[in-house]
Amino acid sequence: MELLENREKPIGVFDSGVGGLTVMREIMRQLPDEKIVYFGDTARVPYGSKSRETVVRYSEQIVRFLQTQQVKAIVVACNTASAYALEALEEKTELPIIDVVKPGAKTAVETTKNGRVGVIGTEGTVGSGIYSSYIHQIDPKVQVTGKACPLFVPLVEEGLWEDPVTDEIASRYLAELIDIGIDTLVLGCTHYPLIRKTVGKIMGEGVTLVNPAYETAVELKELLSQQGLLSPGAPALGENRYRFYVSDAAEKFKRFANSIIKYGILSAKTIPIEEY
Amino acid sequence: MELLENREKPIGVFDSGVGGLTVMREIMRQLPDEKIVYFGDTARVPYGSKSRETVVRYSEQIVRFLQTQQVKAIVVACNTASAYALEALEEKTELPIIDVVKPGAKTAVETTKNGRVGVIGTEGTVGSGIYSSYIHQIDPKVQVTGKACPLFVPLVEEGLWEDPVTDEIASRYLAELIDIGIDTLVLGCTHYPLIRKTVGKIMGEGVTLVNPAYETAVELKELLSQQGLLSPGAPALGENRYRFYVSDAAEKFKRFANSIIKYGILSAKTIPIEEY
Repeated sequence: MELLENREKPIGVFDSGVGGLTVMREIMRQLPDEKIVYFGDTARVPYGSKSRETVVRYSEQIVRFLQTQQVKAIVVACNTASAYALEALEEKTELPIIDVVKPGAKTAVETTKNGRVGVIGTEGTVGSGIYSSYIHQIDPKVQVTGKACPLFVPLVEEGLWEDPVTDEIASRYLAELIDIGIDTLVLGCTHYPLIRKTVGKIMGEGVTLVNPAYETAVELKELLSQQGLLSPGAPALGENRYRFYVSDAAEKFKRFANSIIKYGILSAKTIPIEEY
Repeated sequence: MELLENREKPIGVFDSGVGGLTVMREIMRQLPDEKIVYFGDTARVPYGSKSRETVVRYSEQIVRFLQTQQVKAIVVACNTASAYALEALEEKTELPIIDVVKPGAKTAVETTKNGRVGVIGTEGTVGSGIYSSYIHQIDPKVQVTGKACPLFVPLVEEGLWEDPVTDEIASRYLAELIDIGIDTLVLGCTHYPLIRKTVGKIMGEGVTLVNPAYETAVELKELLSQQGLLSPGAPALGENRYRFYVSDAAEKFKRFANSIIKYGILSAKTIPIEEY
């Protein structure tokens, strides 16, 4: 009975804001029977330009909140939080935790043929060297080049997913990765799948884009399966399958979220995350 | 003796991050004998896309911090905080408080000849209608048109102060203000003076740009003078004239700050603002 109860609990997914919804979307696709509690830290977004200490403190508060929601596993659906806070979070909770960086790193190694991998992300993620570190644990010979792209998130949030301005900015950011001759590029920020067409066009057909959101959902499914935690079936009709919490501006979150996950998010509840 | 002590106290200036340094720069120019304590809320920046409740809570914490620094007056060097939090702050402290919106509004009314004024700023500032409200208190006949420009702050922080991309984005944002035929444009966000060349070029010679940072320093000088609070003279040699505090990433703040205020900021101290 105890086991069944655990299986029926929701998965907790969190991000600094809306970007993690691209990860949630993949989990919804690959694990349609699972309940999900999503938290977006919209009062303190973005994390990408903030320090390790601050991102760790914020992430710990969020995990404490998700634990009050009786989640059975936690997905750190934010590359910056994964880069800075994963170890600290693993020390603080016994729940299974999945991050977005390890799955992306693993797929990058499996994908590259010429041994040259690029990683684009926030200043925090790229500066941390975390992708490089995980990739080298698997294969020390792979050459990893990181490039921070601070304007991508604001461009995505402004809706310029396909636009000459985004083309121009992307051309500048990506030029050195093209020069190096990478054949694999990790979209190391949860916003970036939304501009993958633009990035793909600029990098050209010879470069494979790795979307950690997809790989994370695959890994989550394996983990839940191994631990006997997969949902025993679809939630009952009328049950609240997906719940959304934010730390600020729930209405604005709802609008953007509905443009990403096409689920018809009816409500997002604001909670005082600083108190957790 | 008590009065002299008050006059010798520093002025407290705060912003969500680095933008308020354009206001501090004006105060340094116009009031070179004053000591200043600057606080930038870099752990929670930006404010422009966040809700009123959150911006009020953050601003109140900062004012409590500045009070521990024995300031004699407070400058809200952030348009969003001015728009949302000024009233709440005035209720919480007896110190004189100056915001950046009122001085900008006043100057806009004095400047316009055709009675058509534009205001550009963050979503928060523009959505609040605060400039319009202050302008109409002075002259109800002035027609005010606001336009949120969410990409300007990231473009400025990426260093693209003069760049074809910034030109293109500015052309899009400003098109409707040109169509309306405004003759006065308020730079309603503290980052915008850094791209005033770009904005001026697109708006053309017939449009006067109002920089609230400048007007705020003028008003501050008047206020301090009226209340007998002007500094009695330059701080002694070796005294710490300007002190900088942030809530996160002090090193990064220092680099950007030095590009704005050319003072040679030697240190910025990180404090836990959530605890105030």
